[in-house]
Amino acid sequence: MSNLVAPHGGKGLVCALLHGNELEAEQEKAAGLKKVQVSDRAKGDLIMMGIGGFSPLAGFMNKADWKGVCETFQMEDGTFWPVPITLDVDKADADAINIGDEITLESNGTVMATMKVSEKFEMSEADKKWECEKVFMGEGEESVDGKFWEIAPEDHPGVIMVMAQKGVNIAGTVKVMSQGEYPDEYPGVYLTPAETRAMFEERGWSKVAALQLRNPMHRSHEYLCKIAVEVCDGVMIHSLIGNLKPGDIPADTRVKAIEILIENYFVKDNVINAGYPLDMRYAGPREGLLHATFRQNYGVNNMLIGRDHAGVGDFYGLFEAQDIFDRIPKTGDDAKDLLCEPMKIDWTFYCHKCDGMASLRTCNHDKESRVILSGTKLRKALSDGAEIVDHFGREEVLDHLKLYYAGLTEKVEVKMQGAASGDSM
Amino acid sequence: MSNLVAPHGGKGLVCALLHGNELEAEQEKAAGLKKVQVSDRAKGDLIMMGIGGFSPLAGFMNKADWKGVCETFQMEDGTFWPVPITLDVDKADADAINIGDEITLESNGTVMATMKVSEKFEMSEADKKWECEKVFMGEGEESVDGKFWEIAPEDHPGVIMVMAQKGVNIAGTVKVMSQGEYPDEYPGVYLTPAETRAMFEERGWSKVAALQLRNPMHRSHEYLCKIAVEVCDGVMIHSLIGNLKPGDIPADTRVKAIEILIENYFVKDNVINAGYPLDMRYAGPREGLLHATFRQNYGVNNMLIGRDHAGVGDFYGLFEAQDIFDRIPKTGDDAKDLLCEPMKIDWTFYCHKCDGMASLRTCNHDKESRVILSGTKLRKALSDGAEIVDHFGREEVLDHLKLYYAGLTEKVEVKMQGAASGDSM
Repeated sequence: MSNLVAPHGGKGLVCALLHGNELEAEQEKAAGLKKVQVSDRAKGDLIMMGIGGFSPLAGFMNKADWKGVCETFQMEDGTFWPVPITLDVDKADADAINIGDEITLESNGTVMATMKVSEKFEMSEADKKWECEKVFMGEGEESVDGKFWEIAPEDHPGVIMVMAQKGVNIAGTVKVMSQGEYPDEYPGVYLTPAETRAMFEERGWSKVAALQLRNPMHRSHEYLCKIAVEVCDGVMIHSLIGNLKPGDIPADTRVKAIEILIENYFVKDNVINAGYPLDMRYAGPREGLLHATFRQNYGVNNMLIGRDHAGVGDFYGLFEAQDIFDRIPKTGDDAKDLLCEPMKIDWTFYCHKCDGMASLRTCNHDKESRVILSGTKLRKALSDGAEIVDHFGREEVLDHLKLYYAGLTEKVEVKMQGAASGDSM
Repeated sequence: MSNLVAPHGGKGLVCALLHGNELEAEQEKAAGLKKVQVSDRAKGDLIMMGIGGFSPLAGFMNKADWKGVCETFQMEDGTFWPVPITLDVDKADADAINIGDEITLESNGTVMATMKVSEKFEMSEADKKWECEKVFMGEGEESVDGKFWEIAPEDHPGVIMVMAQKGVNIAGTVKVMSQGEYPDEYPGVYLTPAETRAMFEERGWSKVAALQLRNPMHRSHEYLCKIAVEVCDGVMIHSLIGNLKPGDIPADTRVKAIEILIENYFVKDNVINAGYPLDMRYAGPREGLLHATFRQNYGVNNMLIGRDHAGVGDFYGLFEAQDIFDRIPKTGDDAKDLLCEPMKIDWTFYCHKCDGMASLRTCNHDKESRVILSGTKLRKALSDGAEIVDHFGREEVLDHLKLYYAGLTEKVEVKMQGAASGDSM
């Protein structure tokens, strides 16, 4: 009997990934089915469905689930889910697919899955706009001073992504045949929920925290983790290793930086360095909820949520991703509700008068005493080759990041070339 | 409807303190009753029964409750309680009291309470020894290498206190008529459970931590509090303001030091400086449980338990007061179980390589990098007039404590004279 939090949805880990003979048979069958190309986002979703990261989802959402999720954070059966997990195809493809058909889903030439189509529903511009408002608009009209639609179509990457979706969503259960490049590219770091749960249990953990990371880990992230280590059994530093926006620091550089940080500044037994195969959805506060939802499947029951968690430009208040946890529905049924709780931490910094790390909740000193830490500042300083101020980060980690910026390692250099300059979200 | 943890025992705050006409009538009656002198310990217990700090206790324990508490941490009805709350009288007094009698309980000439005696039970030397073994012996024979009875009668103040008890325990409900000197001597600091609950609610707190203090607050205590502030709504720094052993630093000096610390290093909204009217029982790990039990009545649901909490000499392992929380009975009935949970923190220190406070759970550096903080070391340095090492404490607080040691303030000096030199537990 496990002491870990149960996977979300009350059905255990729902894993659509095929193995062995089943996989071979499905691969053979898939070759003869109609092929549909899916987005990078959908590829990540499929892998998560494969390994149980999206339990209890067994496939892409139908219209009722999509609508419920957008409107009330709940699928049709009342199960909590924070963002739509849908698959868009163009009208021509949709017309060629009949309800009940099996089709093959491909990503960049790789057969990812088959899907038994149970429903098709059109997504008009108005539908997409409605989804964007529900999912991305934050705390109602307050968001971006009510100018959401003036700004979002150009500046909100989540909105841009949804508005660019094709005209029809298709729903249905999937059988997943690939975990993409992740097992090969991130051995020991790309871990499935079953694997992280086994690791937690082996270590005797039951109160497990997770830190979400998509940027290089700086001193504030370390402080969040260390607070968690003080009061939980352990923490999983869980990096996004899916696709990035141009200008972001590639996952292998980030993951290596975390390894260096752990080696030099953590008690190894209390921390796990892992990655998950999703792209950012740029859904703001709702993405914070998604982070907690899939972390529950990984065995985590305390999701660290700091300042501007999953922030997108200036679209959200700095602590909206914390507040939203207080507004989600609670049915009282553990099989339906989100069980992974937020561990909310205020704005953190180094304070000379405190003589250590602190937050707005613990430090009453003047601004001049504080060294404000932010990923944006860090990336800018690194990219300009500027001096990093004292207490900002750990020397060993900064040295590694500087190497990346200097383009001194071959693998890093290749990735760097692929990443055009752009914003650093 | 309060969001705070319910008082222990499922009966709300059970307060035996009389007011107004009821009080006057009882005082008149008390003057005509048989008088029994009670110990300082019992005086504190009576005040706690008065203000609801010992809810659901309505009086001193009978034999069944005493036995259950010693043996299984439970009163006869299954309600959790960690240490006996009993009243001892000598045989002559006991013989002069009949079951059903009302008597008056006095402490140093002050009428504290009346009591309706419902039971008398003899406490032979063997009974007292049995109580000591159950309550004070820690983790069985392991305690002090199995030499408990060789050492305890001389060195364990809790054992000394119980073995010196008079020969008969009397049980019964009480009506409390005084809160002693506390309201006058510690205005704004001596707070009743009803008062702290009102303060927590006014501040919107529901997840409330408490720090137990009987020694001057140093940097490790501050770190524990600040961890709690990061993850809870607020923390109550709760000092013992009852009687002290010779050599201990008086409560007013300690409380003032906390005030100075809060003023200079805390966000005032997130912390409350309060005191409670008990003497130490020197019960080791079981006293840690008592701290959590009565804190629940004050509205606290997270009891900070650090290294050597409520330690007594070398009688207990450094983390026995944490481990014991895993060994207490859980009936599943919230009205019977302890609901205040331990917030266990490892050995903490300042670490030069971490560049801040850390613990054995978060720091992997060598001993040479660490500044070990301990109250014993602090008191010794202060008392010797030695230099305090960097990072050990806060200058403003140390300056205040140095004043006390220099005997420069009148009030402090008076108390100092009353406190003979001795050990510094």
